[in-house]
Amino acid sequence: MPDFKEPDGSHLIGGEWICAESSSFSARNALTGEELSPVFSEAGGIEVEAAMSAARSAFDLSRSIPGERMAALLEDIADGCEREQISLTARAGLETGLLEARLKGEIARTIGQLKLFARVAREHSWVDAVIDHPDMARKPAPKPDIRRIMRPIGPIIVFDASNFPFAFGACGGDTASALAVGCPVVVKAHPAHPGTDSLFASIVLESLYRTDMPLGMFSLLHGLDNETGALLVQHPDTAAAAFTGSLKAGRQLFDIASARPRPIPVYAEMGSLNPVAILPGALEERWEAIVAGLSASITMGCGQFCTKPGLIFVIKGSFSTKFALSLADKLASAPSAPMLNERIRLEFEKGRRNIETLPNIRVLASGSCSGYADCSPSLFTIDSEDWRAKPALQEELFGPAAILVECSNRNDMLKTLRVLPGQLTGTLHIGKQDSEDYVRQVAQLLEARAGRIVFNGYPTGVEVSVAMVHGGLYPAATFPGATSVGTEAARRFVRPIAYQNMPDTLLPPALQEANPLGIRRLEDGRWLEPPQLILAERPR
Amino acid sequence: MPDFKEPDGSHLIGGEWICAESSSFSARNALTGEELSPVFSEAGGIEVEAAMSAARSAFDLSRSIPGERMAALLEDIADGCEREQISLTARAGLETGLLEARLKGEIARTIGQLKLFARVAREHSWVDAVIDHPDMARKPAPKPDIRRIMRPIGPIIVFDASNFPFAFGACGGDTASALAVGCPVVVKAHPAHPGTDSLFASIVLESLYRTDMPLGMFSLLHGLDNETGALLVQHPDTAAAAFTGSLKAGRQLFDIASARPRPIPVYAEMGSLNPVAILPGALEERWEAIVAGLSASITMGCGQFCTKPGLIFVIKGSFSTKFALSLADKLASAPSAPMLNERIRLEFEKGRRNIETLPNIRVLASGSCSGYADCSPSLFTIDSEDWRAKPALQEELFGPAAILVECSNRNDMLKTLRVLPGQLTGTLHIGKQDSEDYVRQVAQLLEARAGRIVFNGYPTGVEVSVAMVHGGLYPAATFPGATSVGTEAARRFVRPIAYQNMPDTLLPPALQEANPLGIRRLEDGRWLEPPQLILAERPR
Repeated sequence: MPDFKEPDGSHLIGGEWICAESSSFSARNALTGEELSPVFSEAGGIEVEAAMSAARSAFDLSRSIPGERMAALLEDIADGCEREQISLTARAGLETGLLEARLKGEIARTIGQLKLFARVAREHSWVDAVIDHPDMARKPAPKPDIRRIMRPIGPIIVFDASNFPFAFGACGGDTASALAVGCPVVVKAHPAHPGTDSLFASIVLESLYRTDMPLGMFSLLHGLDNETGALLVQHPDTAAAAFTGSLKAGRQLFDIASARPRPIPVYAEMGSLNPVAILPGALEERWEAIVAGLSASITMGCGQFCTKPGLIFVIKGSFSTKFALSLADKLASAPSAPMLNERIRLEFEKGRRNIETLPNIRVLASGSCSGYADCSPSLFTIDSEDWRAKPALQEELFGPAAILVECSNRNDMLKTLRVLPGQLTGTLHIGKQDSEDYVRQVAQLLEARAGRIVFNGYPTGVEVSVAMVHGGLYPAATFPGATSVGTEAARRFVRPIAYQNMPDTLLPPALQEANPLGIRRLEDGRWLEPPQLILAERPR
Repeated sequence: MPDFKEPDGSHLIGGEWICAESSSFSARNALTGEELSPVFSEAGGIEVEAAMSAARSAFDLSRSIPGERMAALLEDIADGCEREQISLTARAGLETGLLEARLKGEIARTIGQLKLFARVAREHSWVDAVIDHPDMARKPAPKPDIRRIMRPIGPIIVFDASNFPFAFGACGGDTASALAVGCPVVVKAHPAHPGTDSLFASIVLESLYRTDMPLGMFSLLHGLDNETGALLVQHPDTAAAAFTGSLKAGRQLFDIASARPRPIPVYAEMGSLNPVAILPGALEERWEAIVAGLSASITMGCGQFCTKPGLIFVIKGSFSTKFALSLADKLASAPSAPMLNERIRLEFEKGRRNIETLPNIRVLASGSCSGYADCSPSLFTIDSEDWRAKPALQEELFGPAAILVECSNRNDMLKTLRVLPGQLTGTLHIGKQDSEDYVRQVAQLLEARAGRIVFNGYPTGVEVSVAMVHGGLYPAATFPGATSVGTEAARRFVRPIAYQNMPDTLLPPALQEANPLGIRRLEDGRWLEPPQLILAERPR
């Protein structure tokens, strides 16, 4: 088994560290812009072919590997992340500018996710087993024996995200959920933190050896331009891709995947403004508390969260003015913080300047960028009618900025919310005075667009649990039925298969009559579970 | 409430029968080609806008309508189909050439599907409720209350199929599964059987009145060319589309949907060759029985089933020759039968002629088309190596024809099966002499492509049940995770939504703490069910 290895710029392909000869690039120190060693290779057609070939061979084996062994792999990777957390945190700190405390929290979340998906693999909860027994006496035709489970779909391309180098990184939720169901993963490393990704690859390689897994279960390719990712999504052996990032990049991958001779799903999680509707009763009851909570949510991670609240809707009135001025004060006095990388900072600056120059926009807090990396937060305000007329204000601005939209009355707020495109989240603040009927109307408008509705809270901070939904209508996500966080994320990488009159010994264990895995199954329309599960439920 | 209405060529839009002034067309008698009255309108932009507007308004209401009421609607439609089955069967017989016995069976299946989805609506089994309770004491941050269910996604476009005017028609499985979860439906009627579709629309309109439903829950638009369907899929209020038909038409709709500013899913069920691998042991044991079963499956519905076995794989040997000659005899002596319409017959003739002229193809049964409508079955044979080299033989030929591919040995059969693209079904015939290891290898190759694996049987005859999967990898279907038959078909039209710290009274009933719907829910990682459900399971 290879030892843990410091990044030297190689790709990891089917268990081998491979250094391509093609054009190369370096990561940069997020705080200073200076180049970091080593120099990374750029993966081209040869490396993509090699990684996909390894993944395909691994899949021939992995689709029959018991969940218990996939769980062992995930737990071993989790242990590796724990063991290497100092080097991970150090390298990611350099490459992303994120503070140590944040990175420590994120590695804990990442380890938690790996363990959660290990449990999913072990419990086989994702297989969704259904058995319809035969009825040879049925008229006019006998009823066959039909059994169905979910099965892994094949090699998955994972694009890791710039803003969560761990939790949405090379061993993040996408990789964990794919491995849990037996799908090999080929990670397209993020060019802004390739060193961090390489450390993860080294951890996974050790774990693959230790748990005796096909080495093609995990490859990692580097690439600065978009070509590597495009080649991966176009490869005939690719079954699906998962992406977290900008609308532009996500849509490009979606278009490439849809134009293939055999289209495949791209589960892209992209732009979201995460609207927050503050109803008059809430504003009157606790506007100061909302200022505190909202400003913290806007500036968290320097505004570089998928769930940053970028749009705030209030109804004009005496409390709305106090609220606006106080929020502006709070944001204006917030310290500047580093952006993840230069490209993101430049995009943010451009977007912010574009907003400032729009007619009828009022700048309440004038953020700025200083030095190489740091930006401070901005707050803009605009009347609802003007906001509705400006599609540019209905797109995500990734960074520490928010727009406060002032509605003239309750109906105007409803009319304004109707303009919103798809969102990851929608938040409501409600007070005792707000009528239940009106709250319902606002909630329904948010629900019609978003994957998660938050009450009297803030959208940042995504709980990793069974119930979580991190998705929503386009442009928040490309596929409305999926989530990229929580156990349901595994469903993106499986498909149902029915077996008709299959001999019992040939059936996957999850469907064999004796239920050797001891899982809950829907048999002839009734959920049946092994005795110990029924007992566990009786106390209720 | 309007009376049941004979077709007069109108569209049904939001409860009104509307006759457009634009270019018009007639259905034709499938057996003679003569035009049938009435003349049907062609829906254009105005009718599409009106139908979508009605659907959008209906959805504002329907997403809060209790499952019990959706069930009542579906059951009332089922009753209407039962009541009108003589007129439905008569009109469909004229328009499709299908025999009365077949149509009687199909209307029974359609009624059964409607009732099955009424049960799905009543049981709320599709909502998949999950509750993660809060933990305010959790460190480092309190855990919020998060609850998740599936919710309807919005108006669905249903394209009905030429070959199943009832079961995949205006009130077929797609419509039933969409209505079950509260999604309004706009049906694009099939231009080959618009009269049949209009009869269904009349039934549904009565049911909408009788069950006091929003009239925009169901509209039906006619159109001869592809423009009507394209406009429907492009409409901003459309949430998804369901289609059953040719690869060419399905891919067109998929491409239109993917190119939208906001892409939407198109669940298209398209081409499938439904390979049948007959292993040497099975051939030796019961080749005569397989000839009988397979020839019946190939000629059922004049070969115009999505699941018609179009490819048969055998290994050369003494029994394979007997089998081939006997199957050819059986098919050559099968009576000719009418094709569904002229377009399909012409496509079939063209495809069959193309195959006949390919080098190395041997014609074992030379089918022909006679008169206006009738065709008799063809059987071709080719060596595996030649078959692998000819992509044209790897595409569906819709109609009564099959290709027998002769492999030289067991390994050659595996190599040949690897060439197969995605399929709805894959069938194995195995005998006592066939080694389990080899059977597993063949099954795995079929499983890697298909949605359903059939043992020692035939793929035609799709059971409508919980376990059924009618889908598969492209080109069998556009989305690998979905089925268009069985209760899981409803999942295509829902998406998950999470509610964070939502006040109990505002939560959908399925998620309220007291569980007023009495449904099974996953609470804090454990499945809990109302007491009567637990009792029902104890006997096991």
